[in-house]
Amino acid sequence: MQTDLSSLLNQALTELDYGQQPAALYDPIRYIMGLGGKRLRPLLTLLGGQLFTDELAPLVKPALATEVFHNFTLVHDDLMDHAPLRRGQPTVHEKWNASTAILSGDVMLVRAYELLFDVPAAVLPQVLRRFSQTAAEVCEGQQWDMNFETETTVTIPQYLDMIRLKTAVLLGFALELGAVLAGASADDAEYLRQFGTDIGLAFQLRDDLLDVYGDAATFGKRVGGDIISDKKTFLLLTAQAQADAAQQAALAQHIGQPVADAEAKVAAVRGVYDELNIRPQTEALINQYFEDALLHLDRIGVPAARKEPLRRLALQLLERES
Amino acid sequence: MQTDLSSLLNQALTELDYGQQPAALYDPIRYIMGLGGKRLRPLLTLLGGQLFTDELAPLVKPALATEVFHNFTLVHDDLMDHAPLRRGQPTVHEKWNASTAILSGDVMLVRAYELLFDVPAAVLPQVLRRFSQTAAEVCEGQQWDMNFETETTVTIPQYLDMIRLKTAVLLGFALELGAVLAGASADDAEYLRQFGTDIGLAFQLRDDLLDVYGDAATFGKRVGGDIISDKKTFLLLTAQAQADAAQQAALAQHIGQPVADAEAKVAAVRGVYDELNIRPQTEALINQYFEDALLHLDRIGVPAARKEPLRRLALQLLERES
Repeated sequence: MQTDLSSLLNQALTELDYGQQPAALYDPIRYIMGLGGKRLRPLLTLLGGQLFTDELAPLVKPALATEVFHNFTLVHDDLMDHAPLRRGQPTVHEKWNASTAILSGDVMLVRAYELLFDVPAAVLPQVLRRFSQTAAEVCEGQQWDMNFETETTVTIPQYLDMIRLKTAVLLGFALELGAVLAGASADDAEYLRQFGTDIGLAFQLRDDLLDVYGDAATFGKRVGGDIISDKKTFLLLTAQAQADAAQQAALAQHIGQPVADAEAKVAAVRGVYDELNIRPQTEALINQYFEDALLHLDRIGVPAARKEPLRRLALQLLERES
Repeated sequence: MQTDLSSLLNQALTELDYGQQPAALYDPIRYIMGLGGKRLRPLLTLLGGQLFTDELAPLVKPALATEVFHNFTLVHDDLMDHAPLRRGQPTVHEKWNASTAILSGDVMLVRAYELLFDVPAAVLPQVLRRFSQTAAEVCEGQQWDMNFETETTVTIPQYLDMIRLKTAVLLGFALELGAVLAGASADDAEYLRQFGTDIGLAFQLRDDLLDVYGDAATFGKRVGGDIISDKKTFLLLTAQAQADAAQQAALAQHIGQPVADAEAKVAAVRGVYDELNIRPQTEALINQYFEDALLHLDRIGVPAARKEPLRRLALQLLERES
């Protein structure tokens, strides 16, 4: 069924008309939207709606708002982060230029809003307010992420709040949107939003973990990239908080220093992580968020069988066996 | 009365809450919004509404959406144009950095939308659709403007369409918004929008004219700036279209060439403009748009006395005596 929904979404995406002229403004939008990806956010909207209705057709267009919005953030974030590649292809500012990335991104945010304007009048103000709040929060998360690059003391709660804003709230909104459009109660919509936020936190922590402990063949990014760039992830912040004097020294020898030998840096930092059991600690936190997510899912007032697709998607996202 | 409305708007602007944390995201918004300016767009919304109602209080907040949106475009445009100053003060990307200009601008676009969500449910979808269409058109105008920098053949109709999109449509929308919120008929709202678009075109052409023929003491920008930067304005495009061989040669000696002596360049190009009567030709087109604007204003079904404030503002914008 998830496959059916994905092809439904991909079909609808190909039919979107972002605009034609000037081509320099609209070609980059078609380019980034055509690079693919899991279409996770609109899929969550449909799966969220499917808890409460079998009539998913009216949800497809508003669901795409979350995908267009997500890709808008990718275009602007990649520019701010000077990222050369996105999904293995040149980023918009690399393929065109910085101005194009700024301006095409701006239009994408406008188009994301437009995709929501057809929702029933009774829920339109609520949907727009929640979308706008989420959009501002995602920007706040990106700003915290950039702030953290130069801040010397970032706490673990600050880091978790950053990934909540930057990544998790949009997954929560995507699910809540599906619930609201499918006529769910306010309580059920809120439970579903919390489920999504928790899954989002777990998902991002797993990404942090895979960066260090992932299989280079399947991870899709360079393993150790976060370590090489001194990224203050949950793993590094936890290690710094728990390290003894010798481990502090080992970390300080590499973190914030010019990188002479990237592999040696990754090996040394991972060595400290191993000594401190950072991997099982991270896995434990991921599991905690996952269990918390399932508690929220449990509270939703529909038969358990209807929840299976969402539960399965969450498991799949976290690549757990059960 | 216009003074009263302006202080009403400025008061409401100081009370807007864009957000607090992270300060690096929200301080730049307060900064740019605090630099002042004529608050022309929300003033147009109120004056547009005042044609049809004396109850302007409900129009104030949505009116501010046009001002926040306009300042969003200034933040992103100044970054794209590498402009160091805005209203005599450092631009956001100069005072902070490029990432801040991008991200704070993004949040401003979200906040502009939010200011519209309180309008009556009956007109909400229409207001949002028209605002979004206008927002995309403004981006299209900026893209055409950037395209024209490197295009060798820009026609006068292309130039007029660019300034229509980049500048005029937002003035048209601001007025239309006031009409719609004040309960005007669809026809009257449309006439008012056309009035605003024509005034916007006249306003931009007057700006082009002042760049060359303005009084340095009162213009507020460097006189001749467009000439120095080879900007393809109505004046230059008209001169190039009408120049004889000698005048073509005189222009070609300066336009698109490294600038050795800026004053000499301005004097030479202005010399050609003078020979070709570019100034009176531009004034004639400005007057044409102004007369056209007044025809649209005439069509609106309210007593002429109610139209006086708008007519006077238009005259003031174009600094005409009658």
